[in-house]
Amino acid sequence: MNNSIRVGMVGAGYMVKLHSLSMKNLAAFTDDNRDRFELVRLVDNNMELAQHEAMRWGWKHAESDWRTVTRSPDIDLVDIATPNDMHLEMCLDAFAHGKHVLCEKPLALNRHQAAEMARLAQASGKIHMVNFTYRAWPAIAQAQKIIQEGKLGRIRHFEGHFFQDHNNDHTIPLHWRFNKARAGAGALGDIGSHIIDLARFLVGEVASVSALTQRFIAQRPLPHDKIQQGEVDVDDLTAALIRFENGASGSIKASWALPGFKNDVYFVVVGEKGALRFSWERSNELQIFDAEDAPQLSGYRTVLIGRAHPGAELFWFPALGGELGLGVTAQGMGYGDAFTLSFRHFANAIKAGVSTAPNFIDGLRCCEIIDAILTSASENRWVEVEKTCI
Amino acid sequence: MNNSIRVGMVGAGYMVKLHSLSMKNLAAFTDDNRDRFELVRLVDNNMELAQHEAMRWGWKHAESDWRTVTRSPDIDLVDIATPNDMHLEMCLDAFAHGKHVLCEKPLALNRHQAAEMARLAQASGKIHMVNFTYRAWPAIAQAQKIIQEGKLGRIRHFEGHFFQDHNNDHTIPLHWRFNKARAGAGALGDIGSHIIDLARFLVGEVASVSALTQRFIAQRPLPHDKIQQGEVDVDDLTAALIRFENGASGSIKASWALPGFKNDVYFVVVGEKGALRFSWERSNELQIFDAEDAPQLSGYRTVLIGRAHPGAELFWFPALGGELGLGVTAQGMGYGDAFTLSFRHFANAIKAGVSTAPNFIDGLRCCEIIDAILTSASENRWVEVEKTCI
Amino acid sequence: MNNSIRVGMVGAGYMVKLHSLSMKNLAAFTDDNRDRFELVRLVDNNMELAQHEAMRWGWKHAESDWRTVTRSPDIDLVDIATPNDMHLEMCLDAFAHGKHVLCEKPLALNRHQAAEMARLAQASGKIHMVNFTYRAWPAIAQAQKIIQEGKLGRIRHFEGHFFQDHNNDHTIPLHWRFNKARAGAGALGDIGSHIIDLARFLVGEVASVSALTQRFIAQRPLPHDKIQQGEVDVDDLTAALIRFENGASGSIKASWALPGFKNDVYFVVVGEKGALRFSWERSNELQIFDAEDAPQLSGYRTVLIGRAHPGAELFWFPALGGELGLGVTAQGMGYGDAFTLSFRHFANAIKAGVSTAPNFIDGLRCCEIIDAILTSASENRWVEVEKTCI
Amino acid sequence: MNNSIRVGMVGAGYMVKLHSLSMKNLAAFTDDNRDRFELVRLVDNNMELAQHEAMRWGWKHAESDWRTVTRSPDIDLVDIATPNDMHLEMCLDAFAHGKHVLCEKPLALNRHQAAEMARLAQASGKIHMVNFTYRAWPAIAQAQKIIQEGKLGRIRHFEGHFFQDHNNDHTIPLHWRFNKARAGAGALGDIGSHIIDLARFLVGEVASVSALTQRFIAQRPLPHDKIQQGEVDVDDLTAALIRFENGASGSIKASWALPGFKNDVYFVVVGEKGALRFSWERSNELQIFDAEDAPQLSGYRTVLIGRAHPGAELFWFPALGGELGLGVTAQGMGYGDAFTLSFRHFANAIKAGVSTAPNFIDGLRCCEIIDAILTSASENRWVEVEKTCI
Repeated sequence: MNNSIRVGMVGAGYMVKLHSLSMKNLAAFTDDNRDRFELVRLVDNNMELAQHEAMRWGWKHAESDWRTVTRSPDIDLVDIATPNDMHLEMCLDAFAHGKHVLCEKPLALNRHQAAEMARLAQASGKIHMVNFTYRAWPAIAQAQKIIQEGKLGRIRHFEGHFFQDHNNDHTIPLHWRFNKARAGAGALGDIGSHIIDLARFLVGEVASVSALTQRFIAQRPLPHDKIQQGEVDVDDLTAALIRFENGASGSIKASWALPGFKNDVYFVVVGEKGALRFSWERSNELQIFDAEDAPQLSGYRTVLIGRAHPGAELFWFPALGGELGLGVTAQGMGYGDAFTLSFRHFANAIKAGVSTAPNFIDGLRCCEIIDAILTSASENRWVEVEKTCI
Repeated sequence: MNNSIRVGMVGAGYMVKLHSLSMKNLAAFTDDNRDRFELVRLVDNNMELAQHEAMRWGWKHAESDWRTVTRSPDIDLVDIATPNDMHLEMCLDAFAHGKHVLCEKPLALNRHQAAEMARLAQASGKIHMVNFTYRAWPAIAQAQKIIQEGKLGRIRHFEGHFFQDHNNDHTIPLHWRFNKARAGAGALGDIGSHIIDLARFLVGEVASVSALTQRFIAQRPLPHDKIQQGEVDVDDLTAALIRFENGASGSIKASWALPGFKNDVYFVVVGEKGALRFSWERSNELQIFDAEDAPQLSGYRTVLIGRAHPGAELFWFPALGGELGLGVTAQGMGYGDAFTLSFRHFANAIKAGVSTAPNFIDGLRCCEIIDAILTSASENRWVEVEKTCI
Repeated sequence: MNNSIRVGMVGAGYMVKLHSLSMKNLAAFTDDNRDRFELVRLVDNNMELAQHEAMRWGWKHAESDWRTVTRSPDIDLVDIATPNDMHLEMCLDAFAHGKHVLCEKPLALNRHQAAEMARLAQASGKIHMVNFTYRAWPAIAQAQKIIQEGKLGRIRHFEGHFFQDHNNDHTIPLHWRFNKARAGAGALGDIGSHIIDLARFLVGEVASVSALTQRFIAQRPLPHDKIQQGEVDVDDLTAALIRFENGASGSIKASWALPGFKNDVYFVVVGEKGALRFSWERSNELQIFDAEDAPQLSGYRTVLIGRAHPGAELFWFPALGGELGLGVTAQGMGYGDAFTLSFRHFANAIKAGVSTAPNFIDGLRCCEIIDAILTSASENRWVEVEKTCI
Repeated sequence: MNNSIRVGMVGAGYMVKLHSLSMKNLAAFTDDNRDRFELVRLVDNNMELAQHEAMRWGWKHAESDWRTVTRSPDIDLVDIATPNDMHLEMCLDAFAHGKHVLCEKPLALNRHQAAEMARLAQASGKIHMVNFTYRAWPAIAQAQKIIQEGKLGRIRHFEGHFFQDHNNDHTIPLHWRFNKARAGAGALGDIGSHIIDLARFLVGEVASVSALTQRFIAQRPLPHDKIQQGEVDVDDLTAALIRFENGASGSIKASWALPGFKNDVYFVVVGEKGALRFSWERSNELQIFDAEDAPQLSGYRTVLIGRAHPGAELFWFPALGGELGLGVTAQGMGYGDAFTLSFRHFANAIKAGVSTAPNFIDGLRCCEIIDAILTSASENRWVEVEKTCI
């Protein structure tokens, strides 16, 4: 038990459920005691919430001061799931006190903050990770494997978006995600960061961008007020053309207010020899096109995720004995399982003592691209992505 | 804590993961301490396996004798996930010792066993449930709700199947599922039982059947031998026409050896005013057709499962504060989540002190239909489903 | 021009458009003058309709007496698209006068009529065809080719239906299709005949059947009356289990009153090595599963119909010069194109002097299966398909 | 017959089949003699080809000099389907000689040519049309109707592409489409022009663009040589961000060399109250999302094109008597049918004596946007679309 990773989590909002479950269940899924997370302290400045959620999800202690976890000797890992404007200070304090750090995306409000965080992370010698959950998803990990193996040949074009529609509701109050000072960016940072990360993961580094943004709902009711309205100062939709360093072209879009799109993390990657397509709205499928199939038998294959795909073996394989042979596949994995896989990466990094992707460097790269896109959109011109040397 | 439901599980095979996780996590999902299961004893006649899995999933004790759980005073609920030929004896002993019983499907080897079990279950005054997991799935619960509300009008036709292909592998050894004496039936019992249950859940009681069966792979290697072959004596495919008591017609099919079908729990229900379609291979979708939509705007709606659907609210709603408004939907639920919902039904029944569906009566009805189908297939004639009075 | 096939068509209803266009345009599509049909006489007992449609579609003469075409020396081919109860007499007269005959499906009211017609057709030495249009459709012809080449291995199961919903409208009057004496059967004959033909085309001869039928709307307004109601005496839905002679199992269903199904000619054929799926509602796609694909890359391929598929080369290939290379595919073919391909089969048969499938023997086999299904449904028992020796 | 529209067509390449059939069959489809086209002269500088195709498709005369049709008194309508560099001269000569003109897309090599042509077209008093076929397609016409009726509310975003893969074949020779001097643009002009037209048709005028282009295959074998290679100087892929005048944002992409895309004319239009999706690869479907559907029943409707949709009534309605009631829908329409509908627009314009969209003004607008996109891509900056006053 003294091998377990002792966690302090900051932020008892939406993410507490997903993080808590993934940490609690990981070692059982992997059947490896070294993957054991110990849920020690849960922090929220709303102490009542912290206590309720701590009790609910099995955290030993509830706290209202985040320094309790960045500085406590009984914590190995600080897990940060707060509004974005808190990430910098918390990470710095955590590294300063010798903690591993897992930070929700986007890493920071801007690339300058992110660069500082990445430098400290590197210097700290501790493990750092940004929770770009989707990389670990079997369909997406398989996609990346196919590309890495060269099966698509040279990549020609990438099309990616993350579209939702829940913020089309005008009655949603002006919470922190609609505030540039606290969030850094709107839809682009909140969900676009995921598709930016996937563009890098699947195709490579982004060289330059040309972008536009839109704000559909400019005012929202103040929280705890509901009558007075306040100004939204972030994007509801952002769209960017991109040029990758390797010569591929592409587009990246994000919006949280496009009716009909529910949770559409979508990409198509086309190379000279084939193509891949994915949508989170059918998250258990990967579409694969192989240009070398005979023309009369050629078409996108709808591959249902099963035991053959990276990470899926954790979930639905038979117990000892193999009585189900190759086994039933396609029982279907869910959003919670994505976090289990994501946290396995973190556990593996800690076991190996080496930060693996997606880490703070990846978080930085994403922030650099977000900043380039915002600059491009505000100045109406192509912008080179400025990469900080770390 | 003394309110928790103390569980003894028998059978540490494929199901132990899904049952353990669902029981461990339920109360956190529902945020209701009365839903707390306590994982007390895990039994398997393979003691090494029992110990390993108990350690892994958090069971306090590992046992090799199932009577330890049917008879121990520290057990409230016996959870049976053994080969089918053990269900009868275990259930009887469990009821005899005042336990609640959760039994995997199919309930028994045949309707005679099942009738005995259902009678005892009823007489016991304890809670009993058969783990027909799919009923609780939000898309399917929503489908049933739509039908119950009369939105399809009178039901005309039901088409259902459960098709997989994993047993198309000739090298899978002759384990208990291929043995009529231990399993009762082949594909029809193992997976067909689910679609039979859904036919009843969605449309109503089955009056009569006409069926055929096929065996594609008649011999399989003996386990622990691999050279000698033994005879399979169950069905690889069963197909039945059915007449429902309410006048609807339908078909039910099951096979575990049809290439291309991975885990296809499939149904279409058509009524005079609309239709519903579902496939587990796209388990987060329900297809709904409303005949009253204007012709030029009329078509199947692909409804992605989200917070509006029964049971889904457990999984992806925001924490206190509602900052995400109606909320993101369609993050996707997985197979594990189905078990959480299924176990919630059980917890609710225990809280209420009343067995709710799917219980042993439903398990019996399913066995009656299986028997009628097998009789029909072997005698090449329509067979009335004989319903035991309970 | 004296090589052209001089046609007399009987019945100026729904089919006149499709037949006329296909015949007029075929030779241009094939770029072969021997495929030239000459539209000589169009017959309908509604003379006004005959004249109007003849003018419209380019028939030289309009007639009200069908014997004008079965007996006229200026007619080579009699094309019969009348209610089913007229087929026998017309065909007999046409063969008696040395004509080729193309007859709409189903060939006859029952297998006895059909046997007489098939015998005469064979004896006549003339070309005979039943217009089972779907066989010639590129996706279906490709499916049959794949099966013939053994790529699916031994066939295990066939699932086929033809479902529509237009007759769910209670106001549709009691026309001949609802009258057993004139139609032979209801949905089963009118559209089920197509799926029966495809079962034979794709899998082989049917040995025995077990069926049920339903009538959803028992009374309909009399035509030209609208107040008085008359009795429907045919099926609105028929469902049958089938056993093929080669050991495969299957099901066949037909209905014209199932809301949500618009024009769903549907089949799945599963063999030990792969599977095929098709729905007319996505008629330009064939779904192909190859069990030998690597598991991580394995899934149904959605093959879009293009130049590589049988018959499609008629439609969208570039003119001389090949400047488009392999060419654009997937522009999409329509229902009218199906008839062009079907009539090409007829023209080819005439050129070769040999009746090729689907001919009157196929029409007979279909009627035998329909009769077996109707008998099975009315007597509630398995029925062997009685095959007439021809 | 003297009411018929006497046509001279220039260019006997790929388009001759589609144009000829549509013109020959239109009046029969509409059952209106005023829609009768008379196929008088077919011109190609390859006289052998002209003669062959004229014979094949029913043109009275074959010619090698296009002035035969622009100047002949027996021609009412000049139909231009030549390489793009010929359009200007031919159109001018046709208008000068009092002809109606139908011109294939893109209208001209650039906006200057197009402006000259549009001015002359307007001045001529004759009917002019650019063959943007897709506008008339029932699914797309229905989409536009829905938007016009305000059912989507204010439009927020448009995503459109036209992707094919046939030019991924390196052996395709360096024909005129790969030559900027003859084609004006590459994929952008050849197929991108269609999606540009649809963006305007569905959403409105384009204000500004930011674009990039790629050339994947820089050299191709010279025709009639095959050993020597020549330079391609057009785009294989173009992608543009767009801002519409009404405030909506969007993207437009075109490529003819993206493996896996066969003939994907694709768009999604999202407004504040709903969304529409369409792909030509499933051309008989329109996807409609209505944000006002109840959440638990809400999802994209897959609407199969049938009689209720604009233009479809030409194809599959029953003959007199209405015996099929509302009728069978969803038999499926094909690419050829799109041309029939497009030519009906032309015939209607001639009947009415007023050029209706898509006419030369639309052709000009499209060229203006193409030019803006090309400028943007070469100068790496946002470019305002310069609209010529006509």
